[in-house]
Amino acid sequence: MLDRSVIQSRGFRNVTEGGRVTGFRFQLRNPNYRGVSGSLLDGVEVVVDGERVPDHVPLWTLQGRTLTLDELRASTDVRWQLDELATITVPKPGGLAAGVHQLDVVVFLRRPYFPPMVNRTTFTASATPVLVPPVPGGGLKFGVSTYSYTADIYTLMTMEDVLADIADMGATGVEILGEGNIPGYPTPDAGWVDHWRTLLDRYSLTATNYGSWVDTEMWHDRSLTAEEGAAQIQQDLRLASRLGFTSVRPKFGVTSWDLDPHPIWQESVERSLELAAELDVVICPEIHAPTPIKHPVTQAYVDFIERTGSDHFKLLVDTGIFNTAPVLELSEEIQVDDDEEVPMHLRPLAVPIADLVEVLPHVHFIQAKFATVDDDLHDLHVPWREIIPALQDAGWSGWLSSEYEGRRDPYRGGDQVRRSHALMRSIAAERS
Amino acid sequence: MLDRSVIQSRGFRNVTEGGRVTGFRFQLRNPNYRGVSGSLLDGVEVVVDGERVPDHVPLWTLQGRTLTLDELRASTDVRWQLDELATITVPKPGGLAAGVHQLDVVVFLRRPYFPPMVNRTTFTASATPVLVPPVPGGGLKFGVSTYSYTADIYTLMTMEDVLADIADMGATGVEILGEGNIPGYPTPDAGWVDHWRTLLDRYSLTATNYGSWVDTEMWHDRSLTAEEGAAQIQQDLRLASRLGFTSVRPKFGVTSWDLDPHPIWQESVERSLELAAELDVVICPEIHAPTPIKHPVTQAYVDFIERTGSDHFKLLVDTGIFNTAPVLELSEEIQVDDDEEVPMHLRPLAVPIADLVEVLPHVHFIQAKFATVDDDLHDLHVPWREIIPALQDAGWSGWLSSEYEGRRDPYRGGDQVRRSHALMRSIAAERS
Repeated sequence: MLDRSVIQSRGFRNVTEGGRVTGFRFQLRNPNYRGVSGSLLDGVEVVVDGERVPDHVPLWTLQGRTLTLDELRASTDVRWQLDELATITVPKPGGLAAGVHQLDVVVFLRRPYFPPMVNRTTFTASATPVLVPPVPGGGLKFGVSTYSYTADIYTLMTMEDVLADIADMGATGVEILGEGNIPGYPTPDAGWVDHWRTLLDRYSLTATNYGSWVDTEMWHDRSLTAEEGAAQIQQDLRLASRLGFTSVRPKFGVTSWDLDPHPIWQESVERSLELAAELDVVICPEIHAPTPIKHPVTQAYVDFIERTGSDHFKLLVDTGIFNTAPVLELSEEIQVDDDEEVPMHLRPLAVPIADLVEVLPHVHFIQAKFATVDDDLHDLHVPWREIIPALQDAGWSGWLSSEYEGRRDPYRGGDQVRRSHALMRSIAAERS
Repeated sequence: MLDRSVIQSRGFRNVTEGGRVTGFRFQLRNPNYRGVSGSLLDGVEVVVDGERVPDHVPLWTLQGRTLTLDELRASTDVRWQLDELATITVPKPGGLAAGVHQLDVVVFLRRPYFPPMVNRTTFTASATPVLVPPVPGGGLKFGVSTYSYTADIYTLMTMEDVLADIADMGATGVEILGEGNIPGYPTPDAGWVDHWRTLLDRYSLTATNYGSWVDTEMWHDRSLTAEEGAAQIQQDLRLASRLGFTSVRPKFGVTSWDLDPHPIWQESVERSLELAAELDVVICPEIHAPTPIKHPVTQAYVDFIERTGSDHFKLLVDTGIFNTAPVLELSEEIQVDDDEEVPMHLRPLAVPIADLVEVLPHVHFIQAKFATVDDDLHDLHVPWREIIPALQDAGWSGWLSSEYEGRRDPYRGGDQVRRSHALMRSIAAERS
């Protein structure tokens, strides 16, 4: 699907020619209700961060051909279809800086079926697209969780659109939710599995972590047994492996405000370690607020690693535990009854980064959870300027998988993930 | 694609069992970020027009199976996937009246990975869906133009979604815009043509009218010749016929505020009449504001019919000419430069219905153009209570093809078309 906004979120980037940055480009969907011949297009005025570029200057790329306005006016065999995008290239030596920009455009289009005096019609559009800098050198890998696109997947975006979006921002890893993103879960048909593999290839993405659940209170009258828990984990390990993922995060039911996992967890995981080793998929329990790192729950995971000696059981850290300010925008996913107090998991834990460094040898994956990155690329809650240098200093080389969890306004997830990547990469680039 | 709203616009209708209306039903998308086992669903409270139905009462239909809440809680093999809809059936003898309703729901879902005291979580959603009555008996046929979905097609809805929407409201005809809705226009690939034919079958829709353009001022330095105009018409006639359409509306460039068509129109059409007859596709010029029926432009079309004796050239009437009030909400499609006066085509023409009756023998198709039908099914501009009885009295039996042209808010087109059909059918039913 195309973005409903005329200015598309994908395709906004600097243009390099002969080793120099000569301008920037972006993509527009046709703002009209019909497709038209290129000769009816009559220019596009672009105002970027207040700087105006006259309507005859930008180049148009339509159906694979790049044309000046004069060439477009004289053209006989190029069209702007309703379901195809135009790429607009704007000359600007040095291009644009990484971050959020204000972009306003006016598209001029002649419509001969309007009275001659008014047939040069205008379509205006504005957006604040994000220019994401390239991935810096060093061991950190930058991915995205499809959870970021909650409520947009299947409504505004297909799974392919989500992968295209992740690739468009230069991320190379994709994390999914097994029960969210696999049609026909737990038994997708072979066609879908092939489609998934094809998409990974097409967008040059690595399948990273696969989120799963062990719903210990699946029924009202009894809890799952350890055997049932193991069967659930093993089902997801097999499916994850079939889809190319290298870790599975099972989310167990909990028994307390501290998120103590249901006691079956140890036996369920232990019964699954052999399969995990066989498939070479790492089982990763998630360290998630309100459970900090120095806490019996986390310690039990570390003890389990040491006791079993398994290298297929490691930690997954959700960066929400480092929040230094409360996330006040309750998303629809974390609503509770009005008469409940604000749940503990929303209070900022502010776990010291030194605690992370201590367990880092056991950490397989980092969910770069965040709620808001503002227009100046400032995260309102997570102290990335402490986290990222600490990971670099420790020589940690794993995935930082952006996981947006904030207001679910249409298209906000993709936009926020771009900001998150721009922010994290900018910090990482300072030392790489 | 699913509607982004949790309460879907499609699927809202009364339920008939054993010849009696026993309730109503609607569809929900999963408001959560993951799919879940049916046993984790914990009821849905429904408030319709202020009347509350407790959470244990509605029935759930998931994956083709209909279950009570108790059955759902005990279930082991049914899921609410993220990409699948649940149908909620609410008992209510007599059902709901035709028209717009206020629908509020609260979905309860247990999440074992939340602390036990708060793991029965809630998701609220509200909507004002439209219950569309069945098509009444009589000669009038009710269709929809895809133009109604401008800005939603390719962004929020695929072409299939649009056809599904049209079929869902019980309409049986679909009108398209050739240059808007045919990927690869003017030469769609054979696969798309097959797909189109399959969709018409799947949704039991008849292809009605095909909108085309003859852009006489395609280039800056010269107008099209009559030969080029004829080639354009013939290209569209052939394509329309291939897709099953029975009429083509060519929109010529105009030369005046009165929308006088470019003088090539007569020769271009005349050169195409033989092909039109061969394909049995009727060429229909559009009578569109600000051109009324008693006007030299319309008279020239009638003269043409009489002179050529062709039965493959007839009139298409856009009901915007009957507006009795100005359409004040300028849509993005009809913007003009700020310094231009409001164009004449926005002023209400209030053409007398008697003028329509007079030319009705020449009228092949009616575009039921409208801009706003309010919550009480009152059209703010078009006098349907005069138009529809006049058509019935005259025994006219053709298509009324709803063409929404108003604010392009997301999903508004489909909603307004439902209102338009509910309104037109209710009036028609009074005499049928």
